[in-house]
Amino acid sequence: MLNKDTQLCISLSGRPSNIGTRFHNYLYQKLDLDFIYKAFSTTDIEHAVKGVKALGIRGCSVSMPFKETCIPFIDTLSDSVLAIDSVNTIVNDKGHLTAYNTDYIAVKNLIQDNFNDTQMSVFVKGSGGMAKAVVAAFRDSGFTRVTIVARNQQQGQALAEKYGYQWRQDAAGQQADILVNVTPIGMSGGVEENSLAFEQEAVNTARWVFDVVAFPSETPLIRLAKQLGKPVVTGAEVIALQALEQFALYTGVRPDEQLMREASAFSRL
Amino acid sequence: MLNKDTQLCISLSGRPSNIGTRFHNYLYQKLDLDFIYKAFSTTDIEHAVKGVKALGIRGCSVSMPFKETCIPFIDTLSDSVLAIDSVNTIVNDKGHLTAYNTDYIAVKNLIQDNFNDTQMSVFVKGSGGMAKAVVAAFRDSGFTRVTIVARNQQQGQALAEKYGYQWRQDAAGQQADILVNVTPIGMSGGVEENSLAFEQEAVNTARWVFDVVAFPSETPLIRLAKQLGKPVVTGAEVIALQALEQFALYTGVRPDEQLMREASAFSRL
Repeated sequence: MLNKDTQLCISLSGRPSNIGTRFHNYLYQKLDLDFIYKAFSTTDIEHAVKGVKALGIRGCSVSMPFKETCIPFIDTLSDSVLAIDSVNTIVNDKGHLTAYNTDYIAVKNLIQDNFNDTQMSVFVKGSGGMAKAVVAAFRDSGFTRVTIVARNQQQGQALAEKYGYQWRQDAAGQQADILVNVTPIGMSGGVEENSLAFEQEAVNTARWVFDVVAFPSETPLIRLAKQLGKPVVTGAEVIALQALEQFALYTGVRPDEQLMREASAFSRL
Repeated sequence: MLNKDTQLCISLSGRPSNIGTRFHNYLYQKLDLDFIYKAFSTTDIEHAVKGVKALGIRGCSVSMPFKETCIPFIDTLSDSVLAIDSVNTIVNDKGHLTAYNTDYIAVKNLIQDNFNDTQMSVFVKGSGGMAKAVVAAFRDSGFTRVTIVARNQQQGQALAEKYGYQWRQDAAGQQADILVNVTPIGMSGGVEENSLAFEQEAVNTARWVFDVVAFPSETPLIRLAKQLGKPVVTGAEVIALQALEQFALYTGVRPDEQLMREASAFSRL
């Protein structure tokens, strides 16, 4: 039963879904935590964030289109936010707001856990917000040979310049040790659902394949890499890890993998 | 299970209790309403109220010390607020905040349902916030022969002047048709728990006795009045009715008396 001391966590997004609400509340129940979680939207990000602070709402997940516009109303920006100028998690400690980006944290952890040779060359395909997190995470993990592959020249060049890397419009005929897809290619329901994000040639010669697409976690790119016996990192791992980091920031509790899988499955029912 | 469309109602007070949280959530469950309710406090009433608005929180109950200080941040002040310059209920209709005072509404309804002769003389004992609601409700119900009885001369006179009535420091030796106690005299746990708010003489000659003290609902004053066969209105009726009005403003649903009694009993367990 709810009581006056129950802690509230919320999300702020342009188009709320039920996924976060179901995910977090499932874990709260299983872990017997006195928390509730509910998705919200707003047309006034300033007063929504100031309201989180004034009301003592414990945590606030931030999605499009508020990831950057919320920044002026935060008290402390963690390194994860400073790395990519984008927030997806706000933690309220007795009226002091600290912002994090757990996408960046998750990707950086996956990079550092999997790719132990920073001399490897990297192609990052894409130039959106998640590509920025990936590129920053490679830079902050000490990788120097990163190329941003992006059809959009302006965005691709800007991203490359910001992090001190190269840009190229496409990767035709090119090779790298690590191939990272951060475009919607291979995403369920997308126009390029059945396409490969990189040429088969490039996959043949790569040492690692990392696809940020999470639905399905086995994209055509990941399927091919597995067939070729290459080690992979999937978007499902990114999503699970970022959600774990966020949950831990709000509650101080890190659920085990089995429980995280259950919560994730429940959240998408 | 909570979902993105679940509506949130909250309270804002200096020292939250569990009573409102238990009361509203009990009714939501019994009536199968997709709402949750939780008590909050704040040190920043401006941004708490602006946050209610920006986040689309459906309702916000307001207690001390915010009943007046929240007013500048409301879009529309209902007649019940204008009558006494005090808010206890904020309703958010798609980003438009309307404020009400359901204490005033409840008292006015009880006056109009019970006291059908506006020529009766009235003593209102007390000069605090609730006394203001009572005095305003008598004025707005057409009563002209009202006397404020208050030890505190400054507050008593100010209250009387505001509503066009008389003030006197005490009611010793005086009589009125309706005796209303709006002081803590007779309240459980108070220093005057066993005292009569009016002299026995005055009760003997009164036609009605109204005691706003709700705990216990049978104060020494109410007990004496009943022994003398006088009709009474109790603080328990005020509390129940104001809570019903507030619940109806938030949800559009008016629970029946039996359910209200259950919820009230549950809220104080």
